[in-house]
Amino acid sequence: MITVLAGGVGAARFLQGLLAVHRPSDITIISNVGDDAEFFGLHISPDIDIVLYHLAGLSDEEQGFGIRGDTYNVLEAIAHYGYDIWFRLGDRDLATCITRTDLLRRGRSLSEATAEIASALLVPARIIPATDDPLRTKIRTDEGVLDFQDFFVRRRTEGHTREVIFEGAGSARPAPGIVEAIMEAEAVILTPSNPLVSIGPILSIAGIRDALRTTPARVAAVSPIVGGKALKGPADRMLRDQGIEPSAAAIAKLYEDFLDVLVIDNVDADLKAQIESDAGEAGGGGVEVTVTDTIMESMEKKAALARTVLKAVAA
Amino acid sequence: MITVLAGGVGAARFLQGLLAVHRPSDITIISNVGDDAEFFGLHISPDIDIVLYHLAGLSDEEQGFGIRGDTYNVLEAIAHYGYDIWFRLGDRDLATCITRTDLLRRGRSLSEATAEIASALLVPARIIPATDDPLRTKIRTDEGVLDFQDFFVRRRTEGHTREVIFEGAGSARPAPGIVEAIMEAEAVILTPSNPLVSIGPILSIAGIRDALRTTPARVAAVSPIVGGKALKGPADRMLRDQGIEPSAAAIAKLYEDFLDVLVIDNVDADLKAQIESDAGEAGGGGVEVTVTDTIMESMEKKAALARTVLKAVAA
Repeated sequence: MITVLAGGVGAARFLQGLLAVHRPSDITIISNVGDDAEFFGLHISPDIDIVLYHLAGLSDEEQGFGIRGDTYNVLEAIAHYGYDIWFRLGDRDLATCITRTDLLRRGRSLSEATAEIASALLVPARIIPATDDPLRTKIRTDEGVLDFQDFFVRRRTEGHTREVIFEGAGSARPAPGIVEAIMEAEAVILTPSNPLVSIGPILSIAGIRDALRTTPARVAAVSPIVGGKALKGPADRMLRDQGIEPSAAAIAKLYEDFLDVLVIDNVDADLKAQIESDAGEAGGGGVEVTVTDTIMESMEKKAALARTVLKAVAA
Repeated sequence: MITVLAGGVGAARFLQGLLAVHRPSDITIISNVGDDAEFFGLHISPDIDIVLYHLAGLSDEEQGFGIRGDTYNVLEAIAHYGYDIWFRLGDRDLATCITRTDLLRRGRSLSEATAEIASALLVPARIIPATDDPLRTKIRTDEGVLDFQDFFVRRRTEGHTREVIFEGAGSARPAPGIVEAIMEAEAVILTPSNPLVSIGPILSIAGIRDALRTTPARVAAVSPIVGGKALKGPADRMLRDQGIEPSAAAIAKLYEDFLDVLVIDNVDADLKAQIESDAGEAGGGGVEVTVTDTIMESMEKKAALARTVLKAVAA
């Protein structure tokens, strides 16, 4: 059993490779829910759906989210009723949100609703939201504390990230099955996702971070920072706003209390020795660094990266 | 001020004519809510929406409900999640349902939500749901007690209507403004709608029927039965199932405790004397019968019917 901590697009692309090289039914995906939101009274789980659509072969890979070829007829009509429609939800995507909202209102937990939706989409891996409790990422900028999607989508991440807040983290419990999935895994993998707002919310749940620290399984992460830059999105800028120089080394540092293996890109090969030596000095078990091509331009490259990560974490 | 008790398609067509010949801002429409339902967790108000879409110039007049040129992308996608989709809701129609559901969940009453939606659609008349309380029409057939839409749409009204039940009628109060709209009206008009399941649920609310009995305004009804047949829908068959011979005379009888004027079609001209004489014998103020063309084939005919009804009820 491989357990994966996943954010949005970077996670989905990595998982496409992983599912191609490892038996899907032996993969458990723990999904970020910090970016969940409510629009038009509907519960939206963007990271869960990005992963589901990618693994179901439905994703709009060009825009990164949503369903390929989707239409926006409801969204255009709903604008007439006074709703802001800066969060673009296609019609088929809305069908997922309507279903999730209906299941939640009928008393299902988010993890139960997610399992039903994943099953209907014939997603062969198990996907569990990090928590069934409310957990919302907020961003403090110079304009105040913003909802994550307001900051991320509506304002296009503009402005200085003064603070990343995980509202509800203090009382959020890991969803059922998560601690077991980490403790009993052969290996745990953190996808190349934004460490602050994609993986961060998952790690903000004490029970999950504790399980990562204590699991007998080795824990690997793929650096989302390549050559000092985020592969996608504002992770580099957000790290810098936190006073952290964006680099693969920063990723090792952020995860140092549980990380065994860091997979970095070829362009960062010269960081390997430094990262391993820093981790050794910090005590704990140290970190092994694996250097490979982490740019997932094709299905072949995604699969190759997954194979390399599996090999490194098993070693 | 003209106050109108309205069902679905027949009401909407009559109202198109009325709004063409009378100042819309002086018209209050009391809408049936007995056919409201919940699908996919969304609150659906079919009769309210049929009237709104007709008066907003958006209606799909061929199919009688929904929005002209609407698409069904959400519905097709939602079927994958295991929902029965026999109740056809187009994408733009769904936008209305999503909005209404959101407003209700945020604490608005159904009449407040309806006013907001009507205003967004630029409907110039006031439309009030008969009640803000739960009121649901159920049909007892040989197969048991069915939800109205199950009977009406899914089963296409097949089967013997043993009983029409208005669940919640005992405790449902008229929505705010309704009693005043009836008591202070210059005239009250019942549209040519199914007396059992379109007008019936409105009349099942004691406060509304009482107001019709006591208002100083004259009350007119347009018979939905022409030549012994329903103009549209199963009203004739449903009346017969209740042991009532479907005719314009039956309409007079069903409304006899408050009716002043009955408008019937030319083909039923020979019923005029009998209806007036029966009503005279029953006591009360009697009923005047106006004979005219009630078939609303064109905008001109809709307007002509509205003019005739206004004249008859004013006389």
